[in-house]
Amino acid sequence: MEHIVSSYDDELKFILRRISEMGGQAERMVEQAVSALIRSDWGLAQSVVADDILLDTLQREVDERAVMTIGKRQPMAQDLREIVGAIRISSDLERIGDLGKNIAKRVIAVNDHKQPVQLVRGIEHMSELALEQLKNVLDVYATRDAVRALEIRAHDAEIDALYTSLFRELLTYMMEDPRNITACTHLLFSAKNIERIGDHATNIAETVYYIKTGTQMEAERPKSDSTPSIAAPMPGANG
Amino acid sequence: MEHIVSSYDDELKFILRRISEMGGQAERMVEQAVSALIRSDWGLAQSVVADDILLDTLQREVDERAVMTIGKRQPMAQDLREIVGAIRISSDLERIGDLGKNIAKRVIAVNDHKQPVQLVRGIEHMSELALEQLKNVLDVYATRDAVRALEIRAHDAEIDALYTSLFRELLTYMMEDPRNITACTHLLFSAKNIERIGDHATNIAETVYYIKTGTQMEAERPKSDSTPSIAAPMPGANG
Repeated sequence: MEHIVSSYDDELKFILRRISEMGGQAERMVEQAVSALIRSDWGLAQSVVADDILLDTLQREVDERAVMTIGKRQPMAQDLREIVGAIRISSDLERIGDLGKNIAKRVIAVNDHKQPVQLVRGIEHMSELALEQLKNVLDVYATRDAVRALEIRAHDAEIDALYTSLFRELLTYMMEDPRNITACTHLLFSAKNIERIGDHATNIAETVYYIKTGTQMEAERPKSDSTPSIAAPMPGANG
Repeated sequence: MEHIVSSYDDELKFILRRISEMGGQAERMVEQAVSALIRSDWGLAQSVVADDILLDTLQREVDERAVMTIGKRQPMAQDLREIVGAIRISSDLERIGDLGKNIAKRVIAVNDHKQPVQLVRGIEHMSELALEQLKNVLDVYATRDAVRALEIRAHDAEIDALYTSLFRELLTYMMEDPRNITACTHLLFSAKNIERIGDHATNIAETVYYIKTGTQMEAERPKSDSTPSIAAPMPGANG
């Protein structure tokens, strides 16, 4: 594959295989990071941190191959969008892995602190939704389904709503007993990381839409992308 | 410019002008967002939020023009790296603007809460460092200075150290009086956003190095990219 003169299709296939590997790897990292957080599994957390280098390597490979393919094949229209889309999607997947790694590092940091069980459950639930979005968007990418891409973006609002309510709960919990502050702050950042994972799944949905239709979804998402402007005493989701 | 057949150099110039606009706009947004945070200036915060669309538009323009240029001109070696680098840098600048917008939204959210003055000063100082990094990295990009690019990456550790110490102070402050929790949580996220701005400046430095030398700086940065693994009772910087 490296040495023979291959067609555009072969090169695209090579890139898509790498992205599919990246998708699987990113899913696994997020799953394991949240599982490590919930079970305070320090060893699992460390292995997630170590795995991140794999995604970095794959992304670099996709980038290099994509640039080479554009230069060599001069693809047009959807063919060109496929390659540009691959660059974008691999960058989102790399970032999802990074967010998984951040959660894993937090497990290591928070090791000594008691976790408030019902809040950890809230994070688990959020991560289930985010992982479902990720799984679905990888399917949508595999099938280039622009209609389902729109649906996935709409679903992101659920994760945001969950984040907002978890944010409030965490703040309340911190106010009730200052000894909870350190652990809750870590959970707050973990929740934020998961909310960002949802955003990257949305980005991927937008890219699939672009590949398929040649047009962008409108720039403004139906959701605020991170920090809603709630001036109430207890503000909600936060960037 | 849009209608005549232009050379690679003309197209590169067009792209670089757009990136230079983006850099100025990103700097302005971050400056104004932090200034709005410090002075609780709700109006300024709203104008920062509204300005974000400009960066999105510029980034889209850079992306489209860059892809077109690669397809049409088939640049090689440093010429190709210039275009690929432009895509990466415009994405970092767009994200910096986004982080500025997030801080501005937080001003709107936190409006009713008393700000602990010395902590706001800490954030101001962090933002000065981050803005200096941003300004320097835009200079380094303009001069394609690979040696200074390395120096800039090294400087990011200062911002991280400041973030770590601010994180501890904020946690202490929250523990002292639960009424501080809401405001401090917003400052915590604002500090985190500024720390991320520093990371994006570092990314840009890495891209300049890549454009100039054709090789990547080593994958692992000297700093942990967000969450250090401190298992101490009061953990430091956090992803």
